[in-house]
Amino acid sequence: MNKHVSTSLNQLADSIVTKYNLEAELSKPLCLDKFLTLVSTSLREFMELVLGQGSDPNKQLFFQDEQILALLPEVDTYKADFDRLREAMFYSLHSDGKMLRPALVFIGGILTKAKASDLLIAAMAVECVHTYSLIHDDLPAMDNDDYRRGKLTNHKVFGEDMAILAGDALQTLAFSLLSSNTKQAAQNALAQVQVLAYGAGHYGMCLGQALDILGDDITIKDLEQLGVSNEQAAERLMQIHYRKTAFLIRSSILLGVYASEIGLKTKELADLLAYWAYSLGLTFQIKDDLLDILGNQEETGKPVGSDVANHKLTFVSLFSLDKAQVKLEENFNKTISYIREIESFIANKNEQVFSTHALEWLKEITTYVVNRKK
Amino acid sequence: MNKHVSTSLNQLADSIVTKYNLEAELSKPLCLDKFLTLVSTSLREFMELVLGQGSDPNKQLFFQDEQILALLPEVDTYKADFDRLREAMFYSLHSDGKMLRPALVFIGGILTKAKASDLLIAAMAVECVHTYSLIHDDLPAMDNDDYRRGKLTNHKVFGEDMAILAGDALQTLAFSLLSSNTKQAAQNALAQVQVLAYGAGHYGMCLGQALDILGDDITIKDLEQLGVSNEQAAERLMQIHYRKTAFLIRSSILLGVYASEIGLKTKELADLLAYWAYSLGLTFQIKDDLLDILGNQEETGKPVGSDVANHKLTFVSLFSLDKAQVKLEENFNKTISYIREIESFIANKNEQVFSTHALEWLKEITTYVVNRKK
Repeated sequence: MNKHVSTSLNQLADSIVTKYNLEAELSKPLCLDKFLTLVSTSLREFMELVLGQGSDPNKQLFFQDEQILALLPEVDTYKADFDRLREAMFYSLHSDGKMLRPALVFIGGILTKAKASDLLIAAMAVECVHTYSLIHDDLPAMDNDDYRRGKLTNHKVFGEDMAILAGDALQTLAFSLLSSNTKQAAQNALAQVQVLAYGAGHYGMCLGQALDILGDDITIKDLEQLGVSNEQAAERLMQIHYRKTAFLIRSSILLGVYASEIGLKTKELADLLAYWAYSLGLTFQIKDDLLDILGNQEETGKPVGSDVANHKLTFVSLFSLDKAQVKLEENFNKTISYIREIESFIANKNEQVFSTHALEWLKEITTYVVNRKK
Repeated sequence: MNKHVSTSLNQLADSIVTKYNLEAELSKPLCLDKFLTLVSTSLREFMELVLGQGSDPNKQLFFQDEQILALLPEVDTYKADFDRLREAMFYSLHSDGKMLRPALVFIGGILTKAKASDLLIAAMAVECVHTYSLIHDDLPAMDNDDYRRGKLTNHKVFGEDMAILAGDALQTLAFSLLSSNTKQAAQNALAQVQVLAYGAGHYGMCLGQALDILGDDITIKDLEQLGVSNEQAAERLMQIHYRKTAFLIRSSILLGVYASEIGLKTKELADLLAYWAYSLGLTFQIKDDLLDILGNQEETGKPVGSDVANHKLTFVSLFSLDKAQVKLEENFNKTISYIREIESFIANKNEQVFSTHALEWLKEITTYVVNRKK
């Protein structure tokens, strides 16, 4: 008798797709809020199935390894210890966040008519990477934050050692998920692994964070002394934002695109979406800098003018408030223009290859980024 | 003019294979020492090409992204900052270690007649994962070690924040490497991603480390009070060793196997090799426990009897020295018997599919593990 009956990752994803009728719902021109709610609700439930309380390290997902199960004693004896790491991972992953990156995975995939169950798996993967970066950024050796998304940070609950491990294991899980999806063609899954690793690694997110840390001590006052012009400092700032934010936004939407058959047209679309992603990432950060001055503390959750008080290098401190607002508008227009390019690209192609209603969500997300109050 | 002339990962690997004449050399029945030296020398040089000083974040390896290069300012202005993360990664990766895991990748691949250049890439990937785990294990919040492999630990040189990021980015790099090998069939690379992620993640290495941390405070004295028998404690200890050590040993050898066309025979071989790997991992750890008592401080680098002094749970503390030695012998015999099974499996198959001389290295490595003095 096999006591380790396993459910595959694809079966878990399919069960969520059926429950939320995702294929049909996502093909409708929903309003943005409804779309985002559908994504985050179904994804959170999928996360529970994969990593929640019922998921046993000896069951589900990685069911290929019956061998070691036979070699090992019953895990139940040490259930609490075995569960601790998974609990720490799940605590931060299963959040009330907007799940913007997963939404972008879905948009990329809906544009190219990918399957909802494949998108669910890729969406969880990118959220794993994003969450691991937040856990590690919050550590005492990094930003030393006590709260994140309205609850205690991971190390405050589970201890620093377990938080480091939970972050590490969440990153690994992202690649486990992508490579365990047996319903996709191998070349699609491999393209997903590559685009996610590229955005997350030492060319992308990790490099952005490193540049941020290395520049942390340089204040606006130091620039003259260092012989660095404001323009040069702004270029460095842009590098941080591109790497730290925009790279993973690009990965998110391309994870969705690569869930469909990858042909020449898909590659052209991917290039256009990448321009949009880089541009959105920068727009997002300029808005952040402006919110520090113009925002409402109750809404943003941080004191107005804290960047100024810390002499931090921001678009506002480098260029004045007015110029930063002009830059925001310029970048917003540029971001929107990329979406128009995508629209006309799709209009010139065979209708059957691409689906356009998701472009409305892309526009609305872009507009949301510049209009948000927090 | 395109100023970002790129060299692909495969071209880099091919150049090393040619320089060291790897295909021909590895097909010879070299003595173990010569084989290990060949692997570590060629791999270290490959690491230099991929991540060493000459490797620019805007060149090589991930050359697909010409787009962002056009968007971004010249990196040269901030070369030192851009290089820092890569330096931190390279500092720990490019070590004088034995590179046992890379050697296992080669053995797995030579058995199934994989290409040396594919094995070089996979070998670097598993060493990236192993190195990241060492960097994070050494952190103050974990084991707080100042020295590793005879030099200062990563955080002692680069700071805790950069060490966390270097570990994170090394893990990502492992998956970048596997997914950027364009000469392998996608299904092979994907199988490699899966087996590496499985061994490294919250079912494997990370879980082992978590169990180790959670059990750190339990001493041999506490067992009775906790109502835990020595047998139960030994089962828990075995779980730690399997997960923390044996899982990645399994991944290493299977990374090599999966570099060849994956057929039914390959899968059977993979199963047999996995038994060997689990068994070797356990043997390795029992030997470690014995060395604490029987070793020579000058050779092992740690005081004799430090486990006993710390009331640590080990095979020796749980079972007495004699019984632990019996266990070591039993496990050694079992590990060797798996190699014999592999020999007769291969003997019954078509000679053209598998190559057997690498099995000698596997035997010698197994023998080395039980006879080592440190």
